[in-house]
Amino acid sequence: MGNVFGKYFTVTTFGESHGLAVGCVIDGCPPLIEISESDIQRELDRRRPGQSQISTFRNESDTCRILSGVYQGKTLGTPICIMVENKDQHPGDYDEIAKLWRPSHADFTYDAKYKIRDPRGGGRSSARETIGRVAAGAVAKKILKGVKITAWVESVNLLSMPAVQHTPTDEEINATPVRCPHLPTAEKMIELIKKARTMGDSVGGVIRCRMEGLPAGLGDPVFDRFEADLAKAMLSLPATKGFEIGSGFAGTRMFGSRHNDIFTLDENGNVTTKTNNAGGVLGGMTTSRPVDFRVAFKPTATIAKEQDTLSRDLKPVKVIGRGRHDPCVLPRAVPIVEAMAALVGVNALMSQRAITL
Amino acid sequence: MGNVFGKYFTVTTFGESHGLAVGCVIDGCPPLIEISESDIQRELDRRRPGQSQISTFRNESDTCRILSGVYQGKTLGTPICIMVENKDQHPGDYDEIAKLWRPSHADFTYDAKYKIRDPRGGGRSSARETIGRVAAGAVAKKILKGVKITAWVESVNLLSMPAVQHTPTDEEINATPVRCPHLPTAEKMIELIKKARTMGDSVGGVIRCRMEGLPAGLGDPVFDRFEADLAKAMLSLPATKGFEIGSGFAGTRMFGSRHNDIFTLDENGNVTTKTNNAGGVLGGMTTSRPVDFRVAFKPTATIAKEQDTLSRDLKPVKVIGRGRHDPCVLPRAVPIVEAMAALVGVNALMSQRAITL
Amino acid sequence: MGNVFGKYFTVTTFGESHGLAVGCVIDGCPPLIEISESDIQRELDRRRPGQSQISTFRNESDTCRILSGVYQGKTLGTPICIMVENKDQHPGDYDEIAKLWRPSHADFTYDAKYKIRDPRGGGRSSARETIGRVAAGAVAKKILKGVKITAWVESVNLLSMPAVQHTPTDEEINATPVRCPHLPTAEKMIELIKKARTMGDSVGGVIRCRMEGLPAGLGDPVFDRFEADLAKAMLSLPATKGFEIGSGFAGTRMFGSRHNDIFTLDENGNVTTKTNNAGGVLGGMTTSRPVDFRVAFKPTATIAKEQDTLSRDLKPVKVIGRGRHDPCVLPRAVPIVEAMAALVGVNALMSQRAITL
Amino acid sequence: MGNVFGKYFTVTTFGESHGLAVGCVIDGCPPLIEISESDIQRELDRRRPGQSQISTFRNESDTCRILSGVYQGKTLGTPICIMVENKDQHPGDYDEIAKLWRPSHADFTYDAKYKIRDPRGGGRSSARETIGRVAAGAVAKKILKGVKITAWVESVNLLSMPAVQHTPTDEEINATPVRCPHLPTAEKMIELIKKARTMGDSVGGVIRCRMEGLPAGLGDPVFDRFEADLAKAMLSLPATKGFEIGSGFAGTRMFGSRHNDIFTLDENGNVTTKTNNAGGVLGGMTTSRPVDFRVAFKPTATIAKEQDTLSRDLKPVKVIGRGRHDPCVLPRAVPIVEAMAALVGVNALMSQRAITL
Repeated sequence: MGNVFGKYFTVTTFGESHGLAVGCVIDGCPPLIEISESDIQRELDRRRPGQSQISTFRNESDTCRILSGVYQGKTLGTPICIMVENKDQHPGDYDEIAKLWRPSHADFTYDAKYKIRDPRGGGRSSARETIGRVAAGAVAKKILKGVKITAWVESVNLLSMPAVQHTPTDEEINATPVRCPHLPTAEKMIELIKKARTMGDSVGGVIRCRMEGLPAGLGDPVFDRFEADLAKAMLSLPATKGFEIGSGFAGTRMFGSRHNDIFTLDENGNVTTKTNNAGGVLGGMTTSRPVDFRVAFKPTATIAKEQDTLSRDLKPVKVIGRGRHDPCVLPRAVPIVEAMAALVGVNALMSQRAITL
Repeated sequence: MGNVFGKYFTVTTFGESHGLAVGCVIDGCPPLIEISESDIQRELDRRRPGQSQISTFRNESDTCRILSGVYQGKTLGTPICIMVENKDQHPGDYDEIAKLWRPSHADFTYDAKYKIRDPRGGGRSSARETIGRVAAGAVAKKILKGVKITAWVESVNLLSMPAVQHTPTDEEINATPVRCPHLPTAEKMIELIKKARTMGDSVGGVIRCRMEGLPAGLGDPVFDRFEADLAKAMLSLPATKGFEIGSGFAGTRMFGSRHNDIFTLDENGNVTTKTNNAGGVLGGMTTSRPVDFRVAFKPTATIAKEQDTLSRDLKPVKVIGRGRHDPCVLPRAVPIVEAMAALVGVNALMSQRAITL
Repeated sequence: MGNVFGKYFTVTTFGESHGLAVGCVIDGCPPLIEISESDIQRELDRRRPGQSQISTFRNESDTCRILSGVYQGKTLGTPICIMVENKDQHPGDYDEIAKLWRPSHADFTYDAKYKIRDPRGGGRSSARETIGRVAAGAVAKKILKGVKITAWVESVNLLSMPAVQHTPTDEEINATPVRCPHLPTAEKMIELIKKARTMGDSVGGVIRCRMEGLPAGLGDPVFDRFEADLAKAMLSLPATKGFEIGSGFAGTRMFGSRHNDIFTLDENGNVTTKTNNAGGVLGGMTTSRPVDFRVAFKPTATIAKEQDTLSRDLKPVKVIGRGRHDPCVLPRAVPIVEAMAALVGVNALMSQRAITL
Repeated sequence: MGNVFGKYFTVTTFGESHGLAVGCVIDGCPPLIEISESDIQRELDRRRPGQSQISTFRNESDTCRILSGVYQGKTLGTPICIMVENKDQHPGDYDEIAKLWRPSHADFTYDAKYKIRDPRGGGRSSARETIGRVAAGAVAKKILKGVKITAWVESVNLLSMPAVQHTPTDEEINATPVRCPHLPTAEKMIELIKKARTMGDSVGGVIRCRMEGLPAGLGDPVFDRFEADLAKAMLSLPATKGFEIGSGFAGTRMFGSRHNDIFTLDENGNVTTKTNNAGGVLGGMTTSRPVDFRVAFKPTATIAKEQDTLSRDLKPVKVIGRGRHDPCVLPRAVPIVEAMAALVGVNALMSQRAITL
């Protein structure tokens, strides 16, 4: 249950961290979309481990293969299965982890729910599950012609970049491995992340994302609001604890007369708003202004410090994180946030097509 | 599209603000649940307008009728249709609203999406849509035996109550119409809301909610995480701009070593955690600790000040809110947040039953 | 569960036979469709009881009201709730039925599934449940411009009309209350049905239906084949025991060389086939030739003869049908078959729009 | 779209006939089910081509691999991806097929729907798509403890076996490659199929299936009736043209007084019925009597005789089937029918668990 996302462009991800493979099947992809393994690989490479000194040392090439649904470089309208084999497995000794519950990990809740779990590398709860999401998102982006989705790291722990006046360029974002487009802040973030690793500790932060170029009217007014589907998409990512769109929590401290976005015409005579406190959505539907949201990521649960916990037979034990892990998940989460945003966007687009006779 | 919530306990709401009726149909309610119109009415009365000086003056009795699915006081397992007729309609003159887009309302996006809208009282985008949610939530609460869902107003504009040490009681919350359990703060909030109304302005704030008594293991590990479904449920409510669970955005500023919740045994020998930064979920599944989240509500878009906007034919016009409205939606949103939380809880419970052979 | 039909044009029906009301909510109806209560009433009148000497004597006006989703004669794109109040209730004494299981009725299986049932008039298992389907089908037909759906009674018991060379006209079908367009056969059917009623017995038969004007390419190639969705729709109707499309069971006795439909061009230069053994579908998708199918209906379970059965406490008892019922359900099932076909058609159309960028 | 089956035990199949692989992903499989690749392989071997002289000569080992969701021989509750690589590809020259529409094949409708198709071996419309179904069915059978699903060939063309008095044993069915348990009829069927192949022709027939051991009360009363879901499942199989349950079309020619199944107690004091014209379902729910249904399969569309048809540019052309194909699909369809029945059964079982608190 719960491994399927999207009503129209329907993505099912599969795979455990140390099983044979991870990947996804996409059902509902429109036909005639040009897509290649290299299009997908480019996005996978952005989330790949082992990219820099601030990420995990697990070394996976994460080479994808399209098993079905694409013929002569174009989608057939049939299910697209994309598979990445797991290579750099350290089967090693998971006996310890199998017998206890690591703090703030899902070991305990897996045991509570299923009475069984794959202890190797977190099993299904590994960040490797997101490979299927990124692969599907790469296909979704191809469909969203004219739409630019840009995510970046806005804060790490207490370090927060200044408010942006424009959407950062890909170059600005990728200038450093931390994917914060404000260079002075980025450098401090890198220092902090390295320091956290040295201390055997971890840090969290906030990713911001903008979707530009969406037409007005996407999303539905009641339960399937564009922002509701975004919120679900983002909170479905590992380690996330919050979501806000537009003015978000800060907007709760404004008066209505200041918060309201005034409609006006832009230089081309198109409808726009003077401000975008709404974050690009009104009543659950897009306004054509940038959809602008933030996602909160908690500090990585795996730390190299010794912690108290319980064993499966309810005895107090000590545990110390030994696996390869990211001291800060945010830089690698940037393409994942974008992928999920793309999935939400494509589904809203197809939903709108369905009612347009 | 988008008027259906829940895969198991499936709620479809219907109705426009000034149409004949609003309500819901619940498909998938288990049989043999004891429920009466008065159980539902009690919850509807909590969200009813005209309750106090700080809410809208629209006067609706909101009397519900169960049209189907209940026989001799018990659910049959068949669809439950609950209907509330709209009474206090001011058909009046909606010609003005029909021809323009009110700032930060859904008028523009409805027109963009559907090329048609019901201008009377916001049509489907009215808060009256939530009647169906509250009615369905009342049934859901009956199923969630042993679960206590408690929401309250934590902040209004800049006024924020002190951190709670325990979940407030219903009596504390309902001591004032603003539904903030901290009396000194509540009094200031009421003053502020009255002042906002006098000024023709509006205010927003934050609602906090706790679900206590849920067993461990509810929710699914990937897309249908308990917190993801909660986030979707909350962001599907009108005027919401943010959601956070547990430590939320503040947690992004903590180190992992402090953020991690240490497993231990409680006085009864049950598994618990020393802290609850997780907010009651790990890996998308409940831990049995309270599920603890916050929802951000923007200031009401309808204000009595004159504002610039555009007409449907793209001419600059002025608009001034004349309708009856709440200067602050939070007090009446408290039971709605609880209802949506109950719908998430019931669906997670039934999902878990489905895989338990 | 199971009271929802259709992924795009999503219909939820509700209501028990002797509850307050029956009806449906449609979510996903496109906006700007012209629809009125009289459009729906016309279809409801076709399935209404008390129309002739060969149907039940229950007298219901079945007057519908559109509670939501329609404004100034056009659909809004929001949920359409259509309600019919139950009037001619004979609350009378259902104590007997409540305590036993009528042969070939759903009393036993309801008790097995839910441990509770509404014994009044069959509760949810009444033919009155189909009112919601017919109402929704009336809306669906409005969307299917250029599509003509025609159902008729092809056989009753051993009486079968000759093979048709063309689709019968509405006039031919409605010339007699039995809705068989071949007059000599129709007259014999009416005699047989009257005789069955006199004998306290009942008869079954076969309804044939054709959908003309559907474009090629509707339906999906694997699970959601057009004919699979039709089969589900038809077998979801009370009293149905079989479905066949095109050559059906008879086609299993032909050789491939004769069964294959040869592609050719019609007089307008459009692709057609010389024969239509396929029944208008190939590989699950429409060919643009008429979709042509049959549905088998068993003889009505309620008969006025005394039968052996069991009481709920497993004692042998006698039962005799006393309620008002149809000795042959087929004539009134004609508009219901059409309604379900329309729902399948609209969903396939919207599905196709969703993938057409 | 349309490549997903089941709301609880959700199967997505993927793969084209001559792509890299075919298979399925199962989401919603309960945890702790013992399953191995050999369990799945056993079922796949039953549908494998090249088994006998009466099936296609395409030689595929169809070796399956479980890529995820199973750990130490037990299901984890996470998605199970099962993959079979395509080996015996004859890439050869599909240029001819790519340019025309074979009679009674899906070439034309694929072109109409998608404007693109994979011409190699029928692409997605190949019988190889059913590999994923059989694999998923093998897992489903493991969950349905105490349930025996038995399918067999009842008729081929005009050859029909005598009515059975009991469910045939696996040994009786598998005594000949045609899978008809009545030996004299089976021998004639084999002769006929061989003769059809020699003549370059093909034959169809009827498969019968029984599900024994299902508890009473599975399935839902309205749209998701057990028989409706079965009908959809069966009509979703390639080459199917009809479905009937219990008395089926023949039952339409009986009077109600004879058709009704009288409730009585069996020798163990359990509720049963004297006859089973219902085919094991009443009001859409199982009665605990065998679910008994038939599926009509048309003669194989591919024949080795020359036929007229149209090219994609609407020119009259000749076509002759050259590929490897089955002159009669029924023997290999037997395990596929069983697999789909198992999927329906598991979903109904899980649906029932969900509402049982």
